[in-house]
Amino acid sequence: MNEDIDSSDHTDSPHKKTAFADEEFVVSRALRRFASKETRGRLVVGPGDDAAVIDCGADEFIVDSCDCVVEGVHFRKQWLSLPEFGARAVGSRAVLCAASDIAAMGASPKSVLVSAGVNPRTDSQIIDELLQGIEDACAEIGAAVAGGNTSSAPFMFLDIKVSGETSARSFARNSGAKSGDAVFVTGRLGGSDAAVKILDGLTSGAHSAASELGTLERFRFPSPRIDAGLALAGMVSAMTDISDGLIADLRRVVSLSGCGARLSLEKIPVHPGLAGGAMEAVTAGGDYELVFTASADRTGEIAGVSKKTGLDITQIGSVDGGGALSVFDGETEIPASEFGPGGYVHNDKNG
Amino acid sequence: MNEDIDSSDHTDSPHKKTAFADEEFVVSRALRRFASKETRGRLVVGPGDDAAVIDCGADEFIVDSCDCVVEGVHFRKQWLSLPEFGARAVGSRAVLCAASDIAAMGASPKSVLVSAGVNPRTDSQIIDELLQGIEDACAEIGAAVAGGNTSSAPFMFLDIKVSGETSARSFARNSGAKSGDAVFVTGRLGGSDAAVKILDGLTSGAHSAASELGTLERFRFPSPRIDAGLALAGMVSAMTDISDGLIADLRRVVSLSGCGARLSLEKIPVHPGLAGGAMEAVTAGGDYELVFTASADRTGEIAGVSKKTGLDITQIGSVDGGGALSVFDGETEIPASEFGPGGYVHNDKNG
Repeated sequence: MNEDIDSSDHTDSPHKKTAFADEEFVVSRALRRFASKETRGRLVVGPGDDAAVIDCGADEFIVDSCDCVVEGVHFRKQWLSLPEFGARAVGSRAVLCAASDIAAMGASPKSVLVSAGVNPRTDSQIIDELLQGIEDACAEIGAAVAGGNTSSAPFMFLDIKVSGETSARSFARNSGAKSGDAVFVTGRLGGSDAAVKILDGLTSGAHSAASELGTLERFRFPSPRIDAGLALAGMVSAMTDISDGLIADLRRVVSLSGCGARLSLEKIPVHPGLAGGAMEAVTAGGDYELVFTASADRTGEIAGVSKKTGLDITQIGSVDGGGALSVFDGETEIPASEFGPGGYVHNDKNG
Repeated sequence: MNEDIDSSDHTDSPHKKTAFADEEFVVSRALRRFASKETRGRLVVGPGDDAAVIDCGADEFIVDSCDCVVEGVHFRKQWLSLPEFGARAVGSRAVLCAASDIAAMGASPKSVLVSAGVNPRTDSQIIDELLQGIEDACAEIGAAVAGGNTSSAPFMFLDIKVSGETSARSFARNSGAKSGDAVFVTGRLGGSDAAVKILDGLTSGAHSAASELGTLERFRFPSPRIDAGLALAGMVSAMTDISDGLIADLRRVVSLSGCGARLSLEKIPVHPGLAGGAMEAVTAGGDYELVFTASADRTGEIAGVSKKTGLDITQIGSVDGGGALSVFDGETEIPASEFGPGGYVHNDKNG
């Protein structure tokens, strides 16, 4: 076995994972196997949502999810020692992205289990930085490191389990969208794709422009939308976080809700660093913004959450009775084939 | 990147992980960083024990642990399609070994999160069998699959988080052993090492003898000592499960307890398939038996647990006030160097 193999070409993009065409197949197979039978006893939400929910009684619920980053898939080996990224960012980003699933349920992250696969030849400074990044991120989200596990592995990976708490029965689900609801998204989309392009330039020897530093910083230390998720949980009909891309994640929501949705391309809030504009933003992965549906008469309350949290919340479309997700540029529907396979890959979801 | 690289030579043995000499260093570094500060709020046991413990109030506790298996480290790629093992056993064994940490705390496993890294080229039948094995194991331990995550990965890995419950405040810890206590172990040691040798023979084209089938079956579908753990929790002063080997795991217990212990080699219950006898059994990993300390006046109660669960429980030594773990063959102490590095690798522990 060659432990020094270079993983950088495993996929085209560290979060679209387009090389893994069978991943959706694997997940849907696992879901079919487990989903129907596995809500029982205290487990009130099982596989297929952003997180599992365990009823602790007395209107208290524990919300559990896991998310994994793999060298060569979610980050490139070169990033570990790149001054503009580094192992510390790999550790932070792994925790913060995993916590996004808890935010999308409308819960607060409380504790974290860290399972790390580390190549024995890894420099100890890389490991120290990785641990520091995990610690930074846990401090940021107010969660304790409850434990973990390390294993030798040919490639580095981090699997992060986040346990959250909520005391409300109104945690947000992937299903529940209703015809007539409006579709909203937090923040701006495409920043992570833009950051990956900047990092790819840097690993090829380019210098980053001053304007790119904010994009990189947000990618190194993303903000799971915990406060917004908590505030929105009682207002939304369905909610999820955008890990695979707006189209892929919203398609799952409409499918699970038994409805359809229509998005307006011109309303999509696009990250200024994204060269491809809205067409690229709707399939861009790794942003960990929230997308949610809510009754149109909640618009005022939702604007209040935006004001209170200082986070843009934009109405980008509406839910309808059709069975599909359609994207319109003005009055012209864009064929699904135009978005390429990246936006259709289903991964990173609990289930 | 070459996705077809053969992982079989990554370590000498799939559970001793002797190739990963720095693993103890990584774990102890992580422990130092996180251990002291991370019991707060509901988290009443943090990093460094078999599992984390979260206080849910009303004398109810959730016990969380994670454990990982990696292709080329904990199982060989060839085992996935070996008729005598197969992907189904990889899935089952991953869940059952992870559940052992919950058993070692004296709690019942209730739900499981499965994080899987799968090479996109993996045959779909392998994936089906893997999922079936996970389902088999969850049914065996009475736990629901609460959710999970899949990722593309160059090597297969499974990270299993098990959440358990206990209503007693007397969950078992790694620390708490007192001078004068007796040391006990459940079952027989070395069966997993014996099974790995049989599997290595089979992958080289050998046929397995009828006498080896039981050894293989137990390795394919190990029994986490849940019933015994629950029954013993209120009787023991300290308890852990044997994942890294008796010496390595018991050394951690005496170190955390601030005491020493003396083992009698002739008392070690050795699996009949293990060629090397007791000297090999004390460093054999992967058996997932329980080792625990208890006041000598509990001997009768412990014999009752043995009778009730049908599980051998053997007194193998005693706790003393020294700071070390010593192993005696009759009256002759065996130098620590005789056990080799395998028994000293600290891994697979929560923390």
